Amino acid sequence: MYKCFLIIAFAKASLAQDIQRVEPPFWWSGMEKSEIQIMMYGEDLYNYEAISTDLNLIEIKKAENENYLFITVDTKGFEPGTYVFNLESVDGEVEVMEYELLPREKKSAQRKGFDSSDAIYLVMPDRFANGNSSNDSTDDTTEKANREFKGGRHGGDIQGIIDHLDYIDDLGATALWSTPLLEDNDKSYSYHTYAQSDVYKIDPRYGTNEDYKRLGDELHKRGMKLIMDYVTNHWGATHWMMQDLPTQSWIHQFDDNRGKDFPVAGYANSSYRQTTQMDPNASQIDETYAEKGWFVSSMPDLNQGEPLLLNYLIQNTIWWIEYAGLDGLRVDTYSYNEKKGIAAWTKAVMEEYPNFNIVGETWLHDQAQIAYWQKDSKIAAIQDYNTYLPSVMDFTLHDAIMTAFNEDQQNWDQGMIKVYDNFVNDFLYADIDNILIFAGNHDTNRINGDGLYNGDLKKYKLAMTLVLTTRGIPQIYYGDEIGMEGNRDTDGDGDIRRDFPGGWNGDEINAFKNPTDYQKGFQDFTKRLLNYRKNKSVIHDGKLLQYVPENNCYVYFRYNDDSRVMVVINNNPEAVTLNLDRFQEGIDKRKKGFDILTGEKVNLSDSLKVPSKTSMVIDLDKIKRKERFF
Amino acid sequence: MYKCFLIIAFAKASLAQDIQRVEPPFWWSGMEKSEIQIMMYGEDLYNYEAISTDLNLIEIKKAENENYLFITVDTKGFEPGTYVFNLESVDGEVEVMEYELLPREKKSAQRKGFDSSDAIYLVMPDRFANGNSSNDSTDDTTEKANREFKGGRHGGDIQGIIDHLDYIDDLGATALWSTPLLEDNDKSYSYHTYAQSDVYKIDPRYGTNEDYKRLGDELHKRGMKLIMDYVTNHWGATHWMMQDLPTQSWIHQFDDNRGKDFPVAGYANSSYRQTTQMDPNASQIDETYAEKGWFVSSMPDLNQGEPLLLNYLIQNTIWWIEYAGLDGLRVDTYSYNEKKGIAAWTKAVMEEYPNFNIVGETWLHDQAQIAYWQKDSKIAAIQDYNTYLPSVMDFTLHDAIMTAFNEDQQNWDQGMIKVYDNFVNDFLYADIDNILIFAGNHDTNRINGDGLYNGDLKKYKLAMTLVLTTRGIPQIYYGDEIGMEGNRDTDGDGDIRRDFPGGWNGDEINAFKNPTDYQKGFQDFTKRLLNYRKNKSVIHDGKLLQYVPENNCYVYFRYNDDSRVMVVINNNPEAVTLNLDRFQEGIDKRKKGFDILTGEKVNLSDSLKVPSKTSMVIDLDKIKRKERFF
Repeated sequence: MYKCFLIIAFAKASLAQDIQRVEPPFWWSGMEKSEIQIMMYGEDLYNYEAISTDLNLIEIKKAENENYLFITVDTKGFEPGTYVFNLESVDGEVEVMEYELLPREKKSAQRKGFDSSDAIYLVMPDRFANGNSSNDSTDDTTEKANREFKGGRHGGDIQGIIDHLDYIDDLGATALWSTPLLEDNDKSYSYHTYAQSDVYKIDPRYGTNEDYKRLGDELHKRGMKLIMDYVTNHWGATHWMMQDLPTQSWIHQFDDNRGKDFPVAGYANSSYRQTTQMDPNASQIDETYAEKGWFVSSMPDLNQGEPLLLNYLIQNTIWWIEYAGLDGLRVDTYSYNEKKGIAAWTKAVMEEYPNFNIVGETWLHDQAQIAYWQKDSKIAAIQDYNTYLPSVMDFTLHDAIMTAFNEDQQNWDQGMIKVYDNFVNDFLYADIDNILIFAGNHDTNRINGDGLYNGDLKKYKLAMTLVLTTRGIPQIYYGDEIGMEGNRDTDGDGDIRRDFPGGWNGDEINAFKNPTDYQKGFQDFTKRLLNYRKNKSVIHDGKLLQYVPENNCYVYFRYNDDSRVMVVINNNPEAVTLNLDRFQEGIDKRKKGFDILTGEKVNLSDSLKVPSKTSMVIDLDKIKRKERFF
Repeated sequence: MYKCFLIIAFAKASLAQDIQRVEPPFWWSGMEKSEIQIMMYGEDLYNYEAISTDLNLIEIKKAENENYLFITVDTKGFEPGTYVFNLESVDGEVEVMEYELLPREKKSAQRKGFDSSDAIYLVMPDRFANGNSSNDSTDDTTEKANREFKGGRHGGDIQGIIDHLDYIDDLGATALWSTPLLEDNDKSYSYHTYAQSDVYKIDPRYGTNEDYKRLGDELHKRGMKLIMDYVTNHWGATHWMMQDLPTQSWIHQFDDNRGKDFPVAGYANSSYRQTTQMDPNASQIDETYAEKGWFVSSMPDLNQGEPLLLNYLIQNTIWWIEYAGLDGLRVDTYSYNEKKGIAAWTKAVMEEYPNFNIVGETWLHDQAQIAYWQKDSKIAAIQDYNTYLPSVMDFTLHDAIMTAFNEDQQNWDQGMIKVYDNFVNDFLYADIDNILIFAGNHDTNRINGDGLYNGDLKKYKLAMTLVLTTRGIPQIYYGDEIGMEGNRDTDGDGDIRRDFPGGWNGDEINAFKNPTDYQKGFQDFTKRLLNYRKNKSVIHDGKLLQYVPENNCYVYFRYNDDSRVMVVINNNPEAVTLNLDRFQEGIDKRKKGFDILTGEKVNLSDSLKVPSKTSMVIDLDKIKRKERFF
């Protein structure tokens, strides 16, 4: 950490120029990005004119706002230790700042990010488990706990997650994505924590920075990975800088009257039309309101075109990766960012960690438009653009999953055809294995909710068979594995973010330990399939071979030179008999297989009867009995 | 034409080896493709061993079938005239064939194909006008005229089209696409004429080859263009070759039992899943049934992978272009063809006529998938594929047009948003101006039918304003311009292919000359807008600038350095007032414009009130009063 001392070197009386904040608060020795731009904040810091340091001083930049200084130093060749900055003001005051370079973890640069061998468990920390009830409300944060209110803070925290890592591990997930944990001091709805007020600090209601680091350590002990939900597009209106912007161009500001009643001036809402980012016919004004408009009024939109802000974000990201030992990032509202800036941000992070992984939220309904945002996209190359983003989200598959299993009849584009059709365009993606697939997340209707499959275990099984065996990186949303319900359309965000039963002392039902029969049905299936997937590498990165669904029954294979799995998803309310001649390219002369969902042998010599609304995951390899999980 | 003489040179008795067909029947001197492969057909032609000619003989190829010979000669350097082939059989018979090289039209190679300066009028010839009632049925064709039957032949013909070219010209169309006119001797439903039985011959019920050539001449006299509907994917089961295939691989044949009751052996139906052509995960068997399966049982699927067939198709195409003076082709079921073969066909035709145009039917519902089929597509390049096809069809715009104008409310993806969204992906196309746009054709529900807009003139105006002013090449379907109705979904193909009123002697209503008030409403609007478009080059190839629709009202501009047009399509059932500040990028400081639909001046200094369900086409240029069509 940094420390500051004020020394009065001359006799002149003057204002004290306290340095109130230094960011990043420390750095590491031996980073690829050895040059760092240290931001100092304090009243009239502008008055510091002479600055010296025993690090390699590159540049002193004064922002428009006299309370900020940006001092660039190069740490290259400097060992871990404490280094001194001397800042001398025109008035003769000298402030001494000690700045630490920590030793870097070995192999930090080579860390391997999450990939398609993983299955990601997504939690909303306020709603998962309350491990420390003493921090449910804190003195230094505005919104206090109120578990009765769907949109309020319920007290879940990092300790709660740590307490249930064994559960997540047993379930078969291998990576944890928690929605944001950095401080969000909004007066209400702060539980979603996307309106951050300090991006170097874990929200005290979740715990401390050290707790977050401990979460990483605990995951790593179990061979699991930690994915941070990072927000580049906006901060909260209560962010400390919003009251005293370093530069006016730090955030996007509008002078129309759309935001006149908002605490931070300059608000206009985003049109949410991310498509203007690629539309060659888009008007400038539409581009402006889509990209520069604010996601909501409480979240000023950051301007990644401002080099100081861009660099601040890059350093903050690297700081968290290095500090907490992250294995990946999920980037919120990726496609809403300023295009050049977000590409520069992504490239810089990936240059520091070449084997890392970052998945961007790309909530679009067209494969070409999603593929556009992935690194080395041939689609984006049409517009000479490259995000450098390794992974994107398969929202079109999610679109299909949201309706297909309620469509009992297959017609030209419904039922399993809708799912099949999604994979036709796989060739549009630059890296089809590095794509996040999911049946739902914290922003969508719950898969088991009355807006979708209404707690129908059979339909859940069909959907999850798909998500856990097709190409890509599966992500499951906390609680889906116990049949949790919720309908965003009719009951709002809070309804799809209900508390996990058993996460709070006194909960009537503890689904972690003693699930109800209903919950157990979902849990057992999820656990079985996730644990099978965990060790079945052909599902991680084998090729996909798919067949046009007939009779609303979808058949595909995952295969490589050594291994094969046949997946059958019968969405038909009647049993279907498959003539296996058609599937010989996939079956590849195997005569029998083993359905890992039932534990039964499957004869593949002639035809295969698949019960109504039932899936089969047929392992075609010679596997040992004990590997069958029965 | 060719002529054949049989000479008995030796005394041996033998079978007569009459040459029954020679194709192409003649060729031209001075063609880029100077090498031609002349196919001769006749009983046991195989027995001709010694062949000589005064042209440059390149190769004599015997097909599997002993009744075919393929003789390749190079015509390079040979003047127009009659050339002789001597064919001597093992039995000593010599057959002499005279073969003509015609003089080529000057500038034939440089002919300019249709483009976005054109508006295409699409007719189904059997249903447009009966100009010659003596050919309604003919002795040498099976199906006879029966105007009472929706699926029967009604007697329309080439003379009927020629008789109404002035009507089409006055309407403002500049090019004619007639569905196929080559002989289709199917026993029923031959009126659609996609199941052709002789591709060197106009169906006698439409007229003669000379009549077709005359149609081209009559169009050219008026400065109009002729587009032939060409079918590469299949021929009819009654095609003369189907009874005696040159090679077994000439067509795709299946040995499963799906087609056992069909006259031509080897039938299996196409799955119509054209997406298997690009799906990287597709199974071989699905690829096979999609591409090689027959479109319907009466249309054997041609194998463009067979070099003899491929070359036959290329020569046949060039023959028609040269013979009839064509200005373009529309290719049926383009995306169902064998990929390599159809690309080779397209490339060969375009090499003969570098400025020509060919539009392929690409009936897909995803822009990337449509763009895939256009020449130099960056999408297809992902799979190292290039069709060389200059133009494709904007079926996704058609999808939007089919529902948008019935959607009174704009939500996230409905109403005018659906239309707007189509243009977002314009960047996926290699040549966005060379793309066919349409509100309907002979295979879709009629725009004014009860399946769509049910004769609502207001909605027709909205749809046609879009089609006639946005980027691309507009195509209108005969009869839409008089409000003709028809619903394919409920009443079948025949219902969307009704006879044009006035095309037959004795018709109660003659919409060509004396339209009813209802018909006149549609006709006047269409005529006004088409004729405006004809001379407004900025609509042909100006850039498109579009605005996100608000309140279900869509605003866009076509512009270039010299000229600007503002288009407003208000799909809202209420009037909408536009604040024109938002549109300044498009308006570009103009203070007034001229709505060419009403003839009224439009003040652009402040706001603009647009009546409910009304479009405006506001010319922003300084135009002369007489150019306003009022």
